[in-house]
Amino acid sequence: MRKRAIVILSGGPDSSTVAYWAKREGYEVHGLTFDYGQRASRAEIDSAKRIAEGLGIPLKIVDLSALKEVYAGATALCDEGMPMPSAFEPSLIVPFRNAVMLSIAVAYAASIGAEAVFYGAQGSDAPFYPDCRREFFEAFERAARLGTGTSIRIEAPFHDMKKSEVIELGAELGVPYGLTWSCYSGGERHCGRCESCLNRKRAFEEAGIEDPVAYEA
Amino acid sequence: MRKRAIVILSGGPDSSTVAYWAKREGYEVHGLTFDYGQRASRAEIDSAKRIAEGLGIPLKIVDLSALKEVYAGATALCDEGMPMPSAFEPSLIVPFRNAVMLSIAVAYAASIGAEAVFYGAQGSDAPFYPDCRREFFEAFERAARLGTGTSIRIEAPFHDMKKSEVIELGAELGVPYGLTWSCYSGGERHCGRCESCLNRKRAFEEAGIEDPVAYEA
Repeated sequence: MRKRAIVILSGGPDSSTVAYWAKREGYEVHGLTFDYGQRASRAEIDSAKRIAEGLGIPLKIVDLSALKEVYAGATALCDEGMPMPSAFEPSLIVPFRNAVMLSIAVAYAASIGAEAVFYGAQGSDAPFYPDCRREFFEAFERAARLGTGTSIRIEAPFHDMKKSEVIELGAELGVPYGLTWSCYSGGERHCGRCESCLNRKRAFEEAGIEDPVAYEA
Repeated sequence: MRKRAIVILSGGPDSSTVAYWAKREGYEVHGLTFDYGQRASRAEIDSAKRIAEGLGIPLKIVDLSALKEVYAGATALCDEGMPMPSAFEPSLIVPFRNAVMLSIAVAYAASIGAEAVFYGAQGSDAPFYPDCRREFFEAFERAARLGTGTSIRIEAPFHDMKKSEVIELGAELGVPYGLTWSCYSGGERHCGRCESCLNRKRAFEEAGIEDPVAYEA
């Protein structure tokens, strides 16, 4: 029997590459994506669907849009009344979001008998986003093992790679980056101005790979 | 300024007593309740609302009913096709449910500046339900601190009390137990036969306090 894993798939370049990587590693991959009331939910979920379809894996879409209220006033990613910054600011943090997603992923893993949860947290985000840090997900793994009585693993396989290195790996794996979505703003096209668009542009440039998405700016 | 805390309030006797206790301890209490697709969601949320109203605290109700699908086939609490046991069986475990609730509670605490999350986990359930164990919630607290960069506390203040002792304390605090809901089955009245009804009956008997709810059996 093939080993089974959950991949938290937002439809962005990092998580899409994690999904391709996990399949190549021999896992039976189950994608999991969330509408947590983020501005870009429509575009992200649409991307996650297309990536899952292209990779030939099942995708479960979980409606957590009620979290919009939990996060009201706390983050620009969910509150359209807040300005969208072009560089890191605390208003870009969605507090404890990765834990919310990981906890549901662990619940799902326990339900379907998966041995691991993979997510796309990146070391380059770790100085700014505490729930992208290795010490966080290692502590969460411990809580997950104790809280389920299993030996489940929580891993961020690209944590120690640069974003440009993830893109290089993904290009080898055939990730269709034109289908991925990075922009926080939730328009029809990538805005090209938010922190996430700028990080994406920079990573493709550093990798020397052409970014196939169209930007407004 | 009064210290602020989140109480995860299911509308059952334990969590209702936690809410009354936290208010007496001087906290500005914010209740948080979840529809996670459980059979008894209507009754539980109705109870949580009445308890919050009686105590004069705000209550946020978070719709996680999409979890019904995540938990399909995994637990009798969410899957009406599965038999409802009268004594502990693994099908009563909702995998990692307390972590899902705690992670959203921590997110909410970070959003509104609360210093603690209280939940009603009980040591007497700990042998059966791994996410009621002290080692679990202590590990989760560590993950929460690392994942938010705060010194948030996660506490189960009645973890070391018997359920009957919780009832005794609640009676002193004036908890209106007639408004609380324990039954897993989600009928019009408490079934009196499921594990949760039987635990409740036993606790009131041991405390020598009359249980004000009506049972079918």
